[in-house]
Amino acid sequence: MKKGCPYGTHRVISPKGVLPQPADVIDNTMEIYDNEVLIDVQTLNIDSASFTQIEEQANHDVEEIKKIMLGIVEKAGKHKNPVTGSGGMLIGTVKEIGPAYEGDLKVGDKIATLVSLSLTPLKIDEIIEIRPDIDQVDIKGQAILFQSGLYAKLPTDIPEGLALSALDVAGAPAQTAKFVKPGDTVVVIGGGGKSGLLVGYEAKKRAGVTGNVIVIDGFDKSLDRAKKLGYADHYVLADATDAVGIYNKVMELTDGKLADLVINCVNIENTEMSCILACKEHGLVYFFSMATSFTKAALGAEGVGKDIDMIVGNGYCNGHAEITLQILRESESIRKMFQELYA
Amino acid sequence: MKKGCPYGTHRVISPKGVLPQPADVIDNTMEIYDNEVLIDVQTLNIDSASFTQIEEQANHDVEEIKKIMLGIVEKAGKHKNPVTGSGGMLIGTVKEIGPAYEGDLKVGDKIATLVSLSLTPLKIDEIIEIRPDIDQVDIKGQAILFQSGLYAKLPTDIPEGLALSALDVAGAPAQTAKFVKPGDTVVVIGGGGKSGLLVGYEAKKRAGVTGNVIVIDGFDKSLDRAKKLGYADHYVLADATDAVGIYNKVMELTDGKLADLVINCVNIENTEMSCILACKEHGLVYFFSMATSFTKAALGAEGVGKDIDMIVGNGYCNGHAEITLQILRESESIRKMFQELYA
Ligand SMILES: NC(=O)c1ccc[n+]([C@@H]2O[C@H](COP(=O)([O-])OP(=O)(O)OC[C@H]3O[C@@H](n4cnc5c(N)ncnc54)[C@H](OP(=O)(O)O)[C@@H]3O)[C@@H](O)[C@H]2O)c1
Ligand SMILES: NC(=O)c1ccc[n+]([C@@H]2O[C@H](COP(=O)([O-])OP(=O)(O)OC[C@H]3O[C@@H](n4cnc5c(N)ncnc54)[C@H](OP(=O)(O)O)[C@@H]3O)[C@@H](O)[C@H]2O)c1
Repeated sequence: MKKGCPYGTHRVISPKGVLPQPADVIDNTMEIYDNEVLIDVQTLNIDSASFTQIEEQANHDVEEIKKIMLGIVEKAGKHKNPVTGSGGMLIGTVKEIGPAYEGDLKVGDKIATLVSLSLTPLKIDEIIEIRPDIDQVDIKGQAILFQSGLYAKLPTDIPEGLALSALDVAGAPAQTAKFVKPGDTVVVIGGGGKSGLLVGYEAKKRAGVTGNVIVIDGFDKSLDRAKKLGYADHYVLADATDAVGIYNKVMELTDGKLADLVINCVNIENTEMSCILACKEHGLVYFFSMATSFTKAALGAEGVGKDIDMIVGNGYCNGHAEITLQILRESESIRKMFQELYA
Repeated sequence: MKKGCPYGTHRVISPKGVLPQPADVIDNTMEIYDNEVLIDVQTLNIDSASFTQIEEQANHDVEEIKKIMLGIVEKAGKHKNPVTGSGGMLIGTVKEIGPAYEGDLKVGDKIATLVSLSLTPLKIDEIIEIRPDIDQVDIKGQAILFQSGLYAKLPTDIPEGLALSALDVAGAPAQTAKFVKPGDTVVVIGGGGKSGLLVGYEAKKRAGVTGNVIVIDGFDKSLDRAKKLGYADHYVLADATDAVGIYNKVMELTDGKLADLVINCVNIENTEMSCILACKEHGLVYFFSMATSFTKAALGAEGVGKDIDMIVGNGYCNGHAEITLQILRESESIRKMFQELYA
């Protein structure tokens, strides 16, 4: 049996010497190396930005979506959207474990991988069903988990579709838990979306009664979801690309003090500036959205002379799966809403 | 006289409603609004990533570089490189000040603007001289500074070309001063470049005798610059895109502990992963490089399961001009080297 590198570099075909995520093509032969785990895949949860792009390219035609997805995997050996650069995650059952793999998995365990599909060797034999409203795709196929690859064993007290949909955005609420301090003013842009709803809940929990959580979304339907949960202090209907409009609104709701922390959970481009303007001097902007442009953020803050820290939304932080699943346990209403919308 | 918005939105032509930086086209009529400052421009300092791109597109032909630069400004009303998205800064003399402008400028002051050219209304009458090795371009032309626009009056004890070249990257050493704590292990990738040399100096100053500053550069010539200054603890010749190679090297130099802080000062793509791998669990990566890809950073960290904070290099932080000019005052050898190389 061949020896693998913990980061999966042994699977990289081109360009040589890079890691599997930035690679253009990786080897998706389903014969494992000594430290790999083979997974029988059941469901792919495509990253929201990626799925939206594919849907648009396919003009919302299901057969065309299938073709695009198969084409991506055929070409790259993984489901990394060439336009958005992003992936998603998957659910499946452990089929085989390399003898040198270190971890607590056993054959038959049902797991969700918590590393991106953009670096996971994947083979799709057949696409069985697409559920466009929840970005989920059931397939017959297999995937590989590297030694360094994160995963969560699926909890028994939460239905698996539900767990998967929440774990997909686990980084956002977990980072929120880390950054929000009691009394903070927190603005959640895209707060009616999947990650936004979890972030709003976690933000209020951490900011507490002395805190001020402002949820912003661009559409009545989405904002109503957040309102129905009722965890935030304010709900604002505003377009996330309208920097000046959002700035004025946040000024008004904070007596001109602006936010200590702005969390960007939208799935569209050109929202960097609203976040920057809504944030107070020496505050923090957390960009969870994958549609964030590095240069727009960097030059945007400089352009308006704001001394703020801007964080790239790392999809992982310690305990992110536990923190996220805990929200579903604590909040009956989020659990119900997620079950209806995303599971 | 027409009333202007502090952020310059009154100059945006398309798309409507955005700020001047993300705008495609802005109005570069050189008739000021009530809160604007008109500047007679002497020198443009083009952002390194932008200038490299233009040089390559022009096959290093000076007349072709001129044509491309004039074309950018003709089309956009500002010097925002359409490929890299970045700008640079300028030096000039205050010619006229709107009656509603608040600040301590007076006509005749010699200033450097510290906001990006990517949002500064600019008119070029003539390109007089291009100095490709220092990314500087002397022109005859005019520019507008908005109310929110940062600037520095040029110091009298430092030659202006020298001050300008250092101020162009002022965000990097100033953020270094903010993030480095005594005893920290700091890795500077691209540490032989303009921003890297300042960052290496500031990092060692803040980390102190108990700290460990590791300077990495990809070319002997550049690494030798850093070695000649001699401020760091280690100098490593390595390609910034070789994530695995850099990881191994930093492991070795830190007894397997890796870095508390990694600062990326290179001017090329695909260097996110070296920074992530060189950083220890719960450490910080500061991406000053404008060639950073947001998704590569976000998914890269998740892909290897690293809980680190990654910061978008905001070009501005309080006191950035003062901190940077102070380095030129403190270090005779940096001052000499900058005078030779960049001024
Ligand atoms: N950093 C990471 O590791 C990571 C991991 C997973 C996902 N992500 C990213 O996180 C982002 C959010 O994911 P998600 O699953 O939460 O997406 P989502 O459920 O689609 O949520 C996006 C929200 O933004 C709202 N929105 C859309 N356009 C808007 C506008 N112009 N103004 C204001 N609000 C607007 C949406 O409203 P409608 O629903 O009404 O359109 C929705 O409520 C995506 O960009 C995704 O790529 C990042
Ligand atoms: N965030 C902001 O606000 C802001 C503001 C200004 C500039 N910037 C960005 O900061 C970055 C650095 O600017 P700078 O003026 O310091 O540029 P620079 O002087 O060109 O420095 C870049 C350094 O990286 C080295 N390098 C190039 N390729 C490499 C490789 N493969 N491996 C290792 N090292 C390599 C270069 O070596 P050689 O010289 O030998 O090629 C040089 O020493 C640029 O991307 C620029 O766009 C950001």
